[in-house]
Amino acid sequence: MEVIKTVREMQCFSESLRSRGKRIAFVPTMGYLHDGHLRLMEEGRRRSDCLVTSIYVNPTQFGPGEDLDRYPRDFERDEKLSREVGVDVIFYPSNSEMYPDNYQTYVNVETVTDNLCGLTRPGHFRGVATVCAKLFNIVKPHVTIFGRKDFQQLVVIKRMIADLNMDIEVVGMPTVREPDGLAMSSRNAYLQENERESALSLSRSFKLAESFYAQGERDAAVIIKAVKGFIEKHPGTRIDYVKICDVETMKDVTFLERKSVLALAVWVGVPRLIDNRVFGEDI
Amino acid sequence: MEVIKTVREMQCFSESLRSRGKRIAFVPTMGYLHDGHLRLMEEGRRRSDCLVTSIYVNPTQFGPGEDLDRYPRDFERDEKLSREVGVDVIFYPSNSEMYPDNYQTYVNVETVTDNLCGLTRPGHFRGVATVCAKLFNIVKPHVTIFGRKDFQQLVVIKRMIADLNMDIEVVGMPTVREPDGLAMSSRNAYLQENERESALSLSRSFKLAESFYAQGERDAAVIIKAVKGFIEKHPGTRIDYVKICDVETMKDVTFLERKSVLALAVWVGVPRLIDNRVFGEDI
Repeated sequence: MEVIKTVREMQCFSESLRSRGKRIAFVPTMGYLHDGHLRLMEEGRRRSDCLVTSIYVNPTQFGPGEDLDRYPRDFERDEKLSREVGVDVIFYPSNSEMYPDNYQTYVNVETVTDNLCGLTRPGHFRGVATVCAKLFNIVKPHVTIFGRKDFQQLVVIKRMIADLNMDIEVVGMPTVREPDGLAMSSRNAYLQENERESALSLSRSFKLAESFYAQGERDAAVIIKAVKGFIEKHPGTRIDYVKICDVETMKDVTFLERKSVLALAVWVGVPRLIDNRVFGEDI
Repeated sequence: MEVIKTVREMQCFSESLRSRGKRIAFVPTMGYLHDGHLRLMEEGRRRSDCLVTSIYVNPTQFGPGEDLDRYPRDFERDEKLSREVGVDVIFYPSNSEMYPDNYQTYVNVETVTDNLCGLTRPGHFRGVATVCAKLFNIVKPHVTIFGRKDFQQLVVIKRMIADLNMDIEVVGMPTVREPDGLAMSSRNAYLQENERESALSLSRSFKLAESFYAQGERDAAVIIKAVKGFIEKHPGTRIDYVKICDVETMKDVTFLERKSVLALAVWVGVPRLIDNRVFGEDI
């Protein structure tokens, strides 16, 4: 396994592979890897001759007052896990390599970022789309793999790839959960032991929503009210949003007719956790 | 020579060339080709195994009330000229191929678009950067060639390519002029015969500016005032801007110390013509 730190070297590496007909899979991450990341990497491994991951805590997707400075980092551990899962190259750039002086170009995906995290974290998806556009141009993958835990992010990336005619296949993978149901996230590291029960209110609220859905309830407001009430009963929780949206447009739906996603963002103590559940497909 | 109209077909064509180690040069145009375009194509021909041009009047770079609908078009003539100059492929997409329903992704290059045409044509460079990002992803060139007549456009494209880590070489070529000095432009087709003399005031004003410069004048305001006065004496002219800017940042300069560009945008009857002259290099 190689660790490459410069744009130039990564591009030469990828171009050389492509010119020999090799297929490149790419899993972008912010590091502090967990099983969710490793499942993406295993999928990339299956779909390619060369598996590249990036480990880069991208400053442009954090807002003022967010957790950029304290975002968990452990490159040695990430390196070990990446090697074990069969990564061929870790792209591990510095901030000055990614955003040199006079940097001034940003990619905006518009409509699908108007709701959910796009609404409560202004500029977040501009940062995500921009860094992914950069990483795609640097790594030159044939296929890229994202987790469905960050549901809106996956929609944004798919939209950018389609709109800007990037010749890249996107694969979305199911959320990986702890045995107790908590969606895996690097930010779970912020949770105190006594907050764990409250953090479980997110995934447990899906059971409640599913029971409403199974009984034929299709009124989004009814389900949202029940989910909010359930989560708010847990100490230390503070809801950022609980919404039900169309899975393609990310617009709020009034009734669950087409395929919809119940999306949550909730602070539990320090971390802001997100999770989602899609309705209208096999449960 | 082939004419390709779909994104998918163009990408397959280019990918197949790249995988065989062939070098692709790309000249994006809005058609109605003139000698300025043909010089870019000849340069592309010299620098590649395969020369691709695009002919596409990009709606997203025109503002409301601008000349999108009456922009001159003559595909048959463009096809003939392209073949004669040695183009291998014309990429000639429809609007629905480039901007399908629900299109919503745009590339913004920020600081260098704050002045000149970026100031007087809001959204213009957002459209230019976006369509060029798309075309680069579709044509997959190793090298792209732009004219220096659209000076700020060249700066914007270079900035976008550097910032988004597009692995593409950019070549800027000198402005091609009519024997009388008028910078070649598809929009010259709008000029009435009696407006020609007024249109020449742009390039002739450079002689005036050069004489100031040669005599040691470095005060931008003095040169701008003289150029404006000279152009305004010509009937039918209406100045959009006359500015002297740093060639990299596009910010106004007070004194011509570093390399600077005198940039003009002037309506002459119907068309809005642009031209520029760089100071601080060989005249």
